Amino acid sequence: MTNALQLSVPDGVPFIDFSREIDFPVADVFEAHRNPELIVQWLGPRGMEMEIDHYDFITGGSYKYTHTGPDGVPYDFTGIFHTVRENEFAIQTFEFSGYPDVVSIESISFEDLGNGRTRLSGRSVYPTQEARDGMASSGMEGGMSEGYDRLEELLATRTQETTAQEAS
Amino acid sequence: MTNALQLSVPDGVPFIDFSREIDFPVADVFEAHRNPELIVQWLGPRGMEMEIDHYDFITGGSYKYTHTGPDGVPYDFTGIFHTVRENEFAIQTFEFSGYPDVVSIESISFEDLGNGRTRLSGRSVYPTQEARDGMASSGMEGGMSEGYDRLEELLATRTQETTAQEAS
Repeated sequence: MTNALQLSVPDGVPFIDFSREIDFPVADVFEAHRNPELIVQWLGPRGMEMEIDHYDFITGGSYKYTHTGPDGVPYDFTGIFHTVRENEFAIQTFEFSGYPDVVSIESISFEDLGNGRTRLSGRSVYPTQEARDGMASSGMEGGMSEGYDRLEELLATRTQETTAQEAS
Repeated sequence: MTNALQLSVPDGVPFIDFSREIDFPVADVFEAHRNPELIVQWLGPRGMEMEIDHYDFITGGSYKYTHTGPDGVPYDFTGIFHTVRENEFAIQTFEFSGYPDVVSIESISFEDLGNGRTRLSGRSVYPTQEARDGMASSGMEGGMSEGYDRLEELLATRTQETTAQEAS
């Protein structure tokens, strides 16, 4: 797979860095991060049911959503958007209800690679080394990897629908 | 001075930790962090003029303020409050206009020590080691130290005024 998730978990510092190329234009990739109706279709690992309480992907906005696994256990996630610049950049906070007050801050860049391709890259910064290590060993890599695969599948479906509409 | 600022700048990790005891009750110390009319009287080093655009010290709120030094140069600061719990705890983001998109996340605990005393303690987490090192060498320690001295002076003035009102 050419567009595999690149995840970096450096020793001794509380960061997790990622990079993932996407075979779709930056405006489509950004819209899939902004529009709650799209987000519920891709964010997180396969097999999770996602329910959004609110998701205001704008500077100063906030979000809350719940992932529920096959076992019926719900996981709540909350945060606020410090910065959102369309088709370009965002910074948000991130808190999992299982670790209250352990809040990370995450940046994400949307880079136009030309030819209808996009590179996502970003850094998550944790308030302790232990929180970073715990997150890195929690299955995060698999969940992110599956999420971005689902994002590409979603964008492929939408592109097919648009093409079909234009042809009809 | 018994209530000196304790600042920790650990090697190799992007944290700055602080602790500062205050000779006033936790409700007064919290109010001085919440009320913009009080904040402008103490936040930051002496000699800075502070102007608040907005300061909503509540969960999901945001802030923007400007410090202007004796040379007339303005410095803008912006952020959002991820969590605010009255008399207890807050987490906020922090961005200085001189370093756009370099956003730190800061926690602060308000601890009731009894006998009308409070301990403030917290951690600032930076998105790179370089950003942490730059902040630590920017005169931050002196600015914070002066700010907390000013906070105690402000609370002493307010206590005197309250006492005078009650006596009259």
